[in-house]
Amino acid sequence: MPKDGGKGVALIIGAGDATGGAIAKKFAMQGYEAVITRRKVERLNPVTEDIRSAGGIVHPFGVDARREEEMVSFVKKVEDEIGAIEVAVYNVGGNVRFGISETTSRIFFKVWEMCCFGGFLMGREVSNYMRTRERGTIIFTGATASVRGGNGYSAFAAGKHGLRALAQSMARELSPKGIHVGHVVIDGAIDTEWIKEMFPDRYSKKDQDGILNPDSIADSYWALHQQPRNAWTFEMDLRPWIETW
Amino acid sequence: MPKDGGKGVALIIGAGDATGGAIAKKFAMQGYEAVITRRKVERLNPVTEDIRSAGGIVHPFGVDARREEEMVSFVKKVEDEIGAIEVAVYNVGGNVRFGISETTSRIFFKVWEMCCFGGFLMGREVSNYMRTRERGTIIFTGATASVRGGNGYSAFAAGKHGLRALAQSMARELSPKGIHVGHVVIDGAIDTEWIKEMFPDRYSKKDQDGILNPDSIADSYWALHQQPRNAWTFEMDLRPWIETW
Amino acid sequence: MPKDGGKGVALIIGAGDATGGAIAKKFAMQGYEAVITRRKVERLNPVTEDIRSAGGIVHPFGVDARREEEMVSFVKKVEDEIGAIEVAVYNVGGNVRFGISETTSRIFFKVWEMCCFGGFLMGREVSNYMRTRERGTIIFTGATASVRGGNGYSAFAAGKHGLRALAQSMARELSPKGIHVGHVVIDGAIDTEWIKEMFPDRYSKKDQDGILNPDSIADSYWALHQQPRNAWTFEMDLRPWIETW
Amino acid sequence: MPKDGGKGVALIIGAGDATGGAIAKKFAMQGYEAVITRRKVERLNPVTEDIRSAGGIVHPFGVDARREEEMVSFVKKVEDEIGAIEVAVYNVGGNVRFGISETTSRIFFKVWEMCCFGGFLMGREVSNYMRTRERGTIIFTGATASVRGGNGYSAFAAGKHGLRALAQSMARELSPKGIHVGHVVIDGAIDTEWIKEMFPDRYSKKDQDGILNPDSIADSYWALHQQPRNAWTFEMDLRPWIETW
Repeated sequence: MPKDGGKGVALIIGAGDATGGAIAKKFAMQGYEAVITRRKVERLNPVTEDIRSAGGIVHPFGVDARREEEMVSFVKKVEDEIGAIEVAVYNVGGNVRFGISETTSRIFFKVWEMCCFGGFLMGREVSNYMRTRERGTIIFTGATASVRGGNGYSAFAAGKHGLRALAQSMARELSPKGIHVGHVVIDGAIDTEWIKEMFPDRYSKKDQDGILNPDSIADSYWALHQQPRNAWTFEMDLRPWIETW
Repeated sequence: MPKDGGKGVALIIGAGDATGGAIAKKFAMQGYEAVITRRKVERLNPVTEDIRSAGGIVHPFGVDARREEEMVSFVKKVEDEIGAIEVAVYNVGGNVRFGISETTSRIFFKVWEMCCFGGFLMGREVSNYMRTRERGTIIFTGATASVRGGNGYSAFAAGKHGLRALAQSMARELSPKGIHVGHVVIDGAIDTEWIKEMFPDRYSKKDQDGILNPDSIADSYWALHQQPRNAWTFEMDLRPWIETW
Repeated sequence: MPKDGGKGVALIIGAGDATGGAIAKKFAMQGYEAVITRRKVERLNPVTEDIRSAGGIVHPFGVDARREEEMVSFVKKVEDEIGAIEVAVYNVGGNVRFGISETTSRIFFKVWEMCCFGGFLMGREVSNYMRTRERGTIIFTGATASVRGGNGYSAFAAGKHGLRALAQSMARELSPKGIHVGHVVIDGAIDTEWIKEMFPDRYSKKDQDGILNPDSIADSYWALHQQPRNAWTFEMDLRPWIETW
Repeated sequence: MPKDGGKGVALIIGAGDATGGAIAKKFAMQGYEAVITRRKVERLNPVTEDIRSAGGIVHPFGVDARREEEMVSFVKKVEDEIGAIEVAVYNVGGNVRFGISETTSRIFFKVWEMCCFGGFLMGREVSNYMRTRERGTIIFTGATASVRGGNGYSAFAAGKHGLRALAQSMARELSPKGIHVGHVVIDGAIDTEWIKEMFPDRYSKKDQDGILNPDSIADSYWALHQQPRNAWTFEMDLRPWIETW
């Protein structure tokens, strides 16, 4: 089912992992031009090839989402040279766990930069363009730490709570301007290489659907984008059926 | 696109209003046999005719959701005589506003019966059948009052908070049994006769999509039901783009 | 430090357990006439004797907090014959745990009656008197189940969520009338006979302050009542230092 | 009621405004040596004189709470040269309001530094000392923006949500180590020069107790610190009786 990208651009900041890649592919398969980023562009090769071989259009970029000038000029470039950004997803993580006394200021700052500050830069720059068109969807990827400050998660929870606050503020300001802002709380392990290596016990539950499939996550992001403006969702959670919460 | 109902039963308790009717129609159009209830069966006529003329299968019943014996025998009858309940939606309202000193115990009790107790009866009875099949979806309709006790809403908020607590408890118990339990917080006016008459100013925003369209609500209920078990949503909110929250 | 009760009445509905008794004693020791209730008045004897031997004034009553006529005439009797109710505490529990299919409608209803409906009756009746004086404090005792619907707690969580919603609605309505409404989320085991018998392992942590001391709870209720109206607390949580949450 | 400071140190980071000053005075009057900071030490003169003339002991310091090296050496100096920090309060604000497109990255970063990062530095450094003593109280000052991302508050809410997440994570980790971590949500205008100048209408409600009195806030911080470890509060809100929420 090849598409022509004529629906505009779906921008995924942080498409290096399985989730961002699946979201990019979903939107590409639905007729959007996927623009995907990661700090190191070469690591986008697998996703890029996968989308292209499925007939989708995709443009990979190496962008450091934490650098203001880079983000400002990158978003401008996309708008000027590729097309109108109709959907933007912020999917940069930063899940680390340290006791408070082991949390260096470098860690605390870097996790915030990745979880929250980059989301702010993307949200502001993209919404400036969307606002002129009075339409568009912006989705931020959250986690359990977005709504709970667990033991050992001071850095990650501070960053993710900050991102959620940003999303809420933007939703309240921009919804009446026609921009749909959403926040998805992903509560559980996702089927990624990282989980496979770090949490093999958990990964072993994949056979019984015990970890999140990136394609399923992508379907829910797509469902959010499909909502008509009379019934928009700001927040939804996603977790595997056997997850304890 | 007429369907044969071969996917099993979609049960909507409280299908008298626009929302319940739209949900019933959505599932009927997707191939489920809709079983719809309201206290007075004759008031289901418009919905029934609408679904039938669109080619869907629907069975209207007059049921008082607050009466245990009635609900027990009704759910049994549906399972025995119509088919396996694959989806069950509790959509009974009770939105009233009174200052605390004007809230009679009769009001407080009746609103709880409608908002919460009937949901408990439906949830328990339906899940007893679903549990044996290790599958099924149960969705409870919430409101702003589910998460906020506003001035003058002691009865409604107590009932709706109770329903949300029930839904959460059931989700935590039944998800690992294969049953998807969801709760949808509808935050805003819905396109109904009641809103049209009671809040004409608000209704006038319909032209700009300022009130929720029941069909859009139904689409989100459908999206919840479509989620694979590796990525289930427990809760999502729905509100019009111009709603202040 | 005997007092004369000249500060008015402190009413504790549900003073049969350790918590209600300790709250009653605290207020009596601070110069209030404690009016305490329980369904069976004779079970108030230990608390009554304890307060009196400490020099406090206390009036025990057998009242079923779930019966409207009883509560209406009881509150009137206190106001007419004892004194102005300056503080009212609703402390009736109902902590049960059942899977959803084992939760009978009788249980679901009775737990709601105890957790929520009685609180409504007390809150409405007492606030009617307080409103005329434009002052007074009403505190509702909550639990973990007030903010979380845990597996097996559908009845208890529905009741406690309902009580919290009532408290919030009343706070928003009555604060500007000069009435301080508060809700205390008690998250952990309390030093009671019931915990001692039912959860001996947990009780054994008493030596290291691992369970809540009713007198400490009472101190926090007192602190709430002492707050001047420029800085009122609606909600606070209380838990032992070693509690996991 | 002059005291000798023999109870140890009460550290207030951000004591330049009325709230921090009142908290410092409260603890000094209760026998603690108050150590107070602000970026510019000379602006601590009024508070210092006020506490001293009341007979309290106070040590003013000019400290930039956002600079790691400064905070590390400052906390060490207090512990080495003044005394054991028994209470630490983080009271640095950063309340700004801008639409998302007017929020410069400099603003977003600085507000986060003040609201969240400084709190992290204080919390980590102070808890390292408290941990060895297995006691101590750490309180973070929150705001409405700690729990709500309002329109125009993306920077402030992101910072304050982050601080609350930090506080929660620290509470879960450190409570079982004997350290009481609390978070106070102050919801309303405080009686400060800033409110007087910026929101004169609001300030005019001071006569009817419509704005928070810093001394009342200080009393609640004191009450938190007084709680025995069997019944600790993590979070409480404070608002004037006539505040709408």
